[in-house]
Amino acid sequence: MEGMTSPAELYQTHRELLDRAISAAAARDYWSAFPESPSKKVYGEEAAPAGDRAFTALLGKPFPVDVPGAVGAVATERSPYGIELGVSYPKADPLALVAAARAATPGWRDAGPTGRAGIAAEILTRLHARVFELAHAVQHTTGQAFVMAFQAGGTHALDRGLEAVACALSGTTRLPARTSWTKGDLAMEKTATVVGRGVGLVIGCTTFPTWNGFPGLFASLVTGNPVIVKPHPGAVLPLAITVQVCREVLAEAGLNPDVVTLAAEEPGDGIAATLATHPDVRIVDFTGSSEFGDWLEANARQAVVYTEKSGLNTVVVDSTGDYRGLLRNLAFSLSLYSGQMCTTPQNILVPRDGIETDAGHRDVAEFGADLSAALDKLLGDPRRAAGTLGAIVNDGVLGRLDEAASGSGVLHPSTAVSDEQFPGATIRTPVVVRLDAADEKTYTQECFGPVSYLITTDSTAHSLAVFVETVRAHGALSALVHSTDPAVLEAARSAALDAGVHLSENLTGGVFVNQTAAFSDLHGTGANPAATASLTDDWFVAGRFFTLQSRRHVASS
Amino acid sequence: MEGMTSPAELYQTHRELLDRAISAAAARDYWSAFPESPSKKVYGEEAAPAGDRAFTALLGKPFPVDVPGAVGAVATERSPYGIELGVSYPKADPLALVAAARAATPGWRDAGPTGRAGIAAEILTRLHARVFELAHAVQHTTGQAFVMAFQAGGTHALDRGLEAVACALSGTTRLPARTSWTKGDLAMEKTATVVGRGVGLVIGCTTFPTWNGFPGLFASLVTGNPVIVKPHPGAVLPLAITVQVCREVLAEAGLNPDVVTLAAEEPGDGIAATLATHPDVRIVDFTGSSEFGDWLEANARQAVVYTEKSGLNTVVVDSTGDYRGLLRNLAFSLSLYSGQMCTTPQNILVPRDGIETDAGHRDVAEFGADLSAALDKLLGDPRRAAGTLGAIVNDGVLGRLDEAASGSGVLHPSTAVSDEQFPGATIRTPVVVRLDAADEKTYTQECFGPVSYLITTDSTAHSLAVFVETVRAHGALSALVHSTDPAVLEAARSAALDAGVHLSENLTGGVFVNQTAAFSDLHGTGANPAATASLTDDWFVAGRFFTLQSRRHVASS
Repeated sequence: MEGMTSPAELYQTHRELLDRAISAAAARDYWSAFPESPSKKVYGEEAAPAGDRAFTALLGKPFPVDVPGAVGAVATERSPYGIELGVSYPKADPLALVAAARAATPGWRDAGPTGRAGIAAEILTRLHARVFELAHAVQHTTGQAFVMAFQAGGTHALDRGLEAVACALSGTTRLPARTSWTKGDLAMEKTATVVGRGVGLVIGCTTFPTWNGFPGLFASLVTGNPVIVKPHPGAVLPLAITVQVCREVLAEAGLNPDVVTLAAEEPGDGIAATLATHPDVRIVDFTGSSEFGDWLEANARQAVVYTEKSGLNTVVVDSTGDYRGLLRNLAFSLSLYSGQMCTTPQNILVPRDGIETDAGHRDVAEFGADLSAALDKLLGDPRRAAGTLGAIVNDGVLGRLDEAASGSGVLHPSTAVSDEQFPGATIRTPVVVRLDAADEKTYTQECFGPVSYLITTDSTAHSLAVFVETVRAHGALSALVHSTDPAVLEAARSAALDAGVHLSENLTGGVFVNQTAAFSDLHGTGANPAATASLTDDWFVAGRFFTLQSRRHVASS
Repeated sequence: MEGMTSPAELYQTHRELLDRAISAAAARDYWSAFPESPSKKVYGEEAAPAGDRAFTALLGKPFPVDVPGAVGAVATERSPYGIELGVSYPKADPLALVAAARAATPGWRDAGPTGRAGIAAEILTRLHARVFELAHAVQHTTGQAFVMAFQAGGTHALDRGLEAVACALSGTTRLPARTSWTKGDLAMEKTATVVGRGVGLVIGCTTFPTWNGFPGLFASLVTGNPVIVKPHPGAVLPLAITVQVCREVLAEAGLNPDVVTLAAEEPGDGIAATLATHPDVRIVDFTGSSEFGDWLEANARQAVVYTEKSGLNTVVVDSTGDYRGLLRNLAFSLSLYSGQMCTTPQNILVPRDGIETDAGHRDVAEFGADLSAALDKLLGDPRRAAGTLGAIVNDGVLGRLDEAASGSGVLHPSTAVSDEQFPGATIRTPVVVRLDAADEKTYTQECFGPVSYLITTDSTAHSLAVFVETVRAHGALSALVHSTDPAVLEAARSAALDAGVHLSENLTGGVFVNQTAAFSDLHGTGANPAATASLTDDWFVAGRFFTLQSRRHVASS
């Protein structure tokens, strides 16, 4: 059709980017396709105000996206920064979405791996062109501060999406599409075709709708599956923008836009469960609570289920050669986005006899006081504090924070912070509570939000044992050790392998345990109960497709 | 220790073989590491008689293999060729096997991917040195005729094992073990370590204990898991020899031999179910009935379950340019190992108006008569017939054959064949029964063994519709189409993608639909209910391991 750009042409357009992404995912040095600084020097004078205007223009009206079979509308979001959103979305009929996805499947299969990767790269590129708008959408649904929303919700999410595209393209092209086979007089030609597993379902979370949603979305798409995107009712807009862009690119390429659809609902409608157990839904990606994640793993039996749930992120403090760096780094990790990251440390294990540091010996109480002081220093200036903490995403987090803050053993109390720009924002500093290793009833529960525990153990060996035992049983998405002793570091590495968790060591500078970099760091792992796969490894993409062969004789040469 | 060859040394010894296997699995042209002809020209004068003697020496006594925690012995095998076997095996205690496997895990993890691949290659090489002995063991447990036992049970099984080693080695080394990461002033060193998912369980079948057992065994081993091998009580010896060799190689390399153990039982003990649902068993490989395979998929929830079950292998006959070739090829496919292959065609779909051939038009009755005559010609000479048919593996197959043969619509009756060398052998020619497309109650059940149905449909389009519908619902491991019409072939390819099954086209020569070649043909697919993965694709290996990272700062360069 006139004016159309075919999937194959889009692949050619983006081939250099895709090739670069594939080589980056293999080499795993630092690489990013989408500049993370929102500064004018990078994006120009006009980008930020234009993004602001675009976001504002979306407020208070129906969001323009077609949803097959939708009936009525829902408006379910509330900004943690206190502004009125008032965006409504077509209310989805789950069966209509599945039917539309199935109808779109054959054309999507025929687009082939490179064609689908071309479409995906075009989608990412167009989302990047709207990254300021997307960042506002992330900020006002999740409560991430703007710069973080721009990075974690924007450019880093796009990087994670591109990483998934690269891994999916590698995985689906590893077997050659056409081969010849000759054995003596016998000669055959063989064809390999990638077919998707079936309809994909991406269930978004309320804190990282794009960062955690893009990998599954793009992995399913590039491997040949249509995807129904089911946002959390509290964070619809970032994924609605995503679906809008997907459908626009698909339609312009002459494909059925129902390859990607949006499933908006009222809170409590439970369409995630309906969709996840539909016989035609064969892939489920979920980020959120262990409760629903475990339910999906147990009940979505017809599907491959990729979950990222919650866990007990652990820090083992043994000793350090940079005490100030340790405190500064750890204080930031506890404060960033008010601990509402799946990777924020919760359990900080310190031996009863204290720790050796370059500033001398510190007993547990002293370490607690020093960490508390480091938090106060980091968060002393309200403007800077607001930029680090972001806002509390919902009342559930606030309730847990209040409960922890009103209990015993509080080392660092939580205080309210005001935001100049958004007087209605709900902003709190983190609470740190002192516990003993015997208080396992408390610290083996995940307390999602700005609540961490400083836990006294008998020794570093005991800390490592507690680490292994609690993470094996309850899972974790991150782990950190501080030690100047090579033997302790070696033991910690071994413990992390036994626990089944990725490990950071002696972070005292500008790298934080809660952050993982696309193309270099694996995020999550199926090796402990907090998740079922890594972003992004072979296992995360290989379950989404099959390779089917056909073979026929050819004249022997 | 003196005299030991370390895993790393074994990797160096076999590196050329492993590299070649990896490149063959990528290129997918014909390649085999283990010569399939048992002739003296290939293996020398002494190999065959020595293998015969080694096999005979095993009979009538306890098989020499250590099994941790075993109590007593079991002797459960019966040769389909009628000879006395009388081999006994230590009777396994499932909990002791799991405990032994867990204890062996850390050392096996530390051997690393290349070390484990070196061990695996050494095991395959030593099994190859015993391939004649192994072939006799396969013949007298499965009923495969000797040459087929040598090939399918020996060299081809070794090829499939090596293919799994190659895929597992590729998969576990795709992410570099050590990388550096530099972002501005920040520099880190990152380590990636492969850890196995947990204890592997391989549940063997009675017809192809090695060919179907080796891929899971070697894939689990190379990815870092200990493996408990649970043979079918009717076909223990081939896998007992395998376990013996595994333990010998492990011990000689200074590793805990309990990385591989044998789980022999009395029929009905049910230790497969006990093991498959043990919390520490995290990988299950199963080949056998849909009934138990489906049970495993539903109940072994703590594990990744790879199954190969049964299905409705289908032939769509539309037209042919080589009628004699078609008949000869199809007759052989129905006869080989008495249809006791998971890939033997069962449902042969022919349009009511008949088919066009180079020998003129054939109506359905004529085609049935011609196929029957082709079977008689192939199986007319008893010696040749015995070599093709092999023996009936057990009374279950015999019962189904008798039932089909005594019903109505028999086009080709089954007859008994005698074997000069083994007068006690149970050998039967296949039965072909004529059905109509309306008789779906009969042909949508798998009738494992030498029973096939010639099914009249309304048209080739109807045949393709029946093909898609029955295979989507009940699964299949193979499919074949015969047509001279490019449009029909194109429609058949599309139908095979919809059905989710590999397709062969116009086989009229020396390639048969029941055979797949390691390194080139994928065997099975998760795209239909007959299996959950292909031998051997990324999905088959990626679920068996995790990659865990650790990261630390280094001085920025």
